[in-house]
Amino acid sequence: MSDQEWTDPHCPVARTLDLLGDRWSLLIVRDAFDGVRRFSDFQRGLGIARNILIDRLRALIAVGVMERCPNERGTRSEYALTEKGRDLFTVVVALRQWGECHAFAPGEEHSELLARATGAPVPPLAVTAADGAPLDAADTRVRKVAPVPK
Amino acid sequence: MSDQEWTDPHCPVARTLDLLGDRWSLLIVRDAFDGVRRFSDFQRGLGIARNILIDRLRALIAVGVMERCPNERGTRSEYALTEKGRDLFTVVVALRQWGECHAFAPGEEHSELLARATGAPVPPLAVTAADGAPLDAADTRVRKVAPVPK
Repeated sequence: MSDQEWTDPHCPVARTLDLLGDRWSLLIVRDAFDGVRRFSDFQRGLGIARNILIDRLRALIAVGVMERCPNERGTRSEYALTEKGRDLFTVVVALRQWGECHAFAPGEEHSELLARATGAPVPPLAVTAADGAPLDAADTRVRKVAPVPK
Repeated sequence: MSDQEWTDPHCPVARTLDLLGDRWSLLIVRDAFDGVRRFSDFQRGLGIARNILIDRLRALIAVGVMERCPNERGTRSEYALTEKGRDLFTVVVALRQWGECHAFAPGEEHSELLARATGAPVPPLAVTAADGAPLDAADTRVRKVAPVPK
């Protein structure tokens, strides 16, 4: 991707959104974290049109978030997260936790993220300083990069 | 939003993506965290078409992430994050940190998130168990909610 194509070339938030495209991409990544590997399982689980799924998987492979690999028997391809893709775990967890708090009516059922070892819910992610002190947005600032003259 | 309209009604990740729509919505939220409040400043900062910005601000207000409020002199409206919107801080930080690691070539300049008090970069978010032990995706599982019969 050249600089011309980035929405905001120096901002990591904007670049990530440019790379991951739309909600389908992040839902494919979510399902991959949940163990989905086969095209047909992504398609069934997401209720997504075949051509859109093909397009989004291709884009996720192009940016290096997913890779195509043979299944155990070597009879067909499956799709798995790369290391770069697995690093999206905090993004998916942050989206999930916000949704748990704010996207359901009181008492409405929703899926939950549990620690496998204990079965307890995963505690909320917290932005902290190097010494562990919690930070909210007002405690932080973005150091902008000066625009490059053209 | 009725159940029919949710991409995946029981999943908090999916609902959050449904609510926040597309990348413009999250970039508006990002700019609001950086202190932008005026329509013209969002428009200039994002390089976004006026009608798209109007549409996305309206949607963010409708889901309760932003609110319209008078400026200091009471002469015109500004836009600010609600508490629900400010809770998106971890989502924006998670997107930012992934982008810092994976969306730039080595040595390429990017903006940075700093702790205001110390000027030091904000450390990476970490998913942890209740006892503080780091968890990766393999250490967690999603407890699915059984589908509701129709």
